[in-house]
Amino acid sequence: MEEQKRTAIVVFSGEMDKVFAALIIGNGAAAMGHEVTMFFTFWGLKAIQKGNLTGKGFFGRMIGVMNRGGINRIGPSRFNFGGIGRWMFKKMMAAKGVTPLDQMLQLAVDMGVKLYPCLMTMDVMEIPQESFIEGVQQPVGVATFMEAASGAELNLFI
Amino acid sequence: MEEQKRTAIVVFSGEMDKVFAALIIGNGAAAMGHEVTMFFTFWGLKAIQKGNLTGKGFFGRMIGVMNRGGINRIGPSRFNFGGIGRWMFKKMMAAKGVTPLDQMLQLAVDMGVKLYPCLMTMDVMEIPQESFIEGVQQPVGVATFMEAASGAELNLFI
Amino acid sequence: MEEQKRTAIVVFSGEMDKVFAALIIGNGAAAMGHEVTMFFTFWGLKAIQKGNLTGKGFFGRMIGVMNRGGINRIGPSRFNFGGIGRWMFKKMMAAKGVTPLDQMLQLAVDMGVKLYPCLMTMDVMEIPQESFIEGVQQPVGVATFMEAASGAELNLFI
Repeated sequence: MEEQKRTAIVVFSGEMDKVFAALIIGNGAAAMGHEVTMFFTFWGLKAIQKGNLTGKGFFGRMIGVMNRGGINRIGPSRFNFGGIGRWMFKKMMAAKGVTPLDQMLQLAVDMGVKLYPCLMTMDVMEIPQESFIEGVQQPVGVATFMEAASGAELNLFI
Repeated sequence: MEEQKRTAIVVFSGEMDKVFAALIIGNGAAAMGHEVTMFFTFWGLKAIQKGNLTGKGFFGRMIGVMNRGGINRIGPSRFNFGGIGRWMFKKMMAAKGVTPLDQMLQLAVDMGVKLYPCLMTMDVMEIPQESFIEGVQQPVGVATFMEAASGAELNLFI
Repeated sequence: MEEQKRTAIVVFSGEMDKVFAALIIGNGAAAMGHEVTMFFTFWGLKAIQKGNLTGKGFFGRMIGVMNRGGINRIGPSRFNFGGIGRWMFKKMMAAKGVTPLDQMLQLAVDMGVKLYPCLMTMDVMEIPQESFIEGVQQPVGVATFMEAASGAELNLFI
């Protein structure tokens, strides 16, 4: 029996364009029959948050405000100009019939892509599990990522 | 017979230093006998453009102006200061006898590295095939990249 | 006999959060018994520098000042605000009992992770070998990285 092919992606950057690229590749791999693991860490966690304010301590609250999550709130890595860029890219993508980012994320969940939040980032930034959208796995550490990634057909850090 | 070894690189970032790193690795892999696929997407497309203004609609033209391509026009990810950084890095690299970026790109074409533009980005940003330098392949989607990348010896997202 | 498993990471970005992610993954792979190669290039070199000023020529000195290295001097990719972000992240990480960055780096050396500086970057930016912390390998070119990376279980560009 052939071994199950795997793809493992670290989503470190919470920028709209990079999350978009990560989801295109992750969903593409899932469509090819790969078992796909996406490990959301650091700023990447924003992409799987609902968008509620988070944090309890002083620093945690500050990060919660400055770095508020939610797939529809994140901006591109260039030309954001305080949100105008995000709006512009959404318009451009919609005009060309590209699947919107939130639907890409839902598609990933529906296709069985495993979305793991990074336990350590959640702890440091004071982001609770209930701030994530439905379908996100229980948080894991780097060892779980390493197991999924080691020997996978495709490994990327985005 | 031994299977052909492969390297596949996503060039997402259009920054001078990252494109430089991508070409060094891509050309290095080609020199080792790998079949090399470089998939230029999002800002990365700038690196394989001639530098003409592009775009037809309002947003497309805006992106064409703000994000004008051309391997000699892109700036580094740090210390660009409106073009001074680009000039400085070029000077520094030339002083140390490093192959200039445009020659690295030509070398890639000459060594048979496959440079693919991302069809979806071209569509969204209104970048036509004729804006690319000679030697660039016909545009492809993520499935073509996945085929080249899956099981390659080396996969990178830059 | 089973072949030695390998992990190879390019550390291109000298940002605190990305270097942190690179070290977590590199040390994690070493703990799993992988032979780990970390190739520090471009801004990544800052992470393995002691923090002395470097450079001899005009441009080299300028880069030495603007881009001064040292694992405790590098800032995060977001919210640095001239050093406040670095301080804040250190506080947050310490409060949660996360191993500090300089200890992570020392741990890498102690676990036998191979830290290679990129010869070409050292040459272009005028960074001498003696500016690196103890335990860093002799500088190498891209061919050495390619050998370590080709066919490794895990390859990342960070």
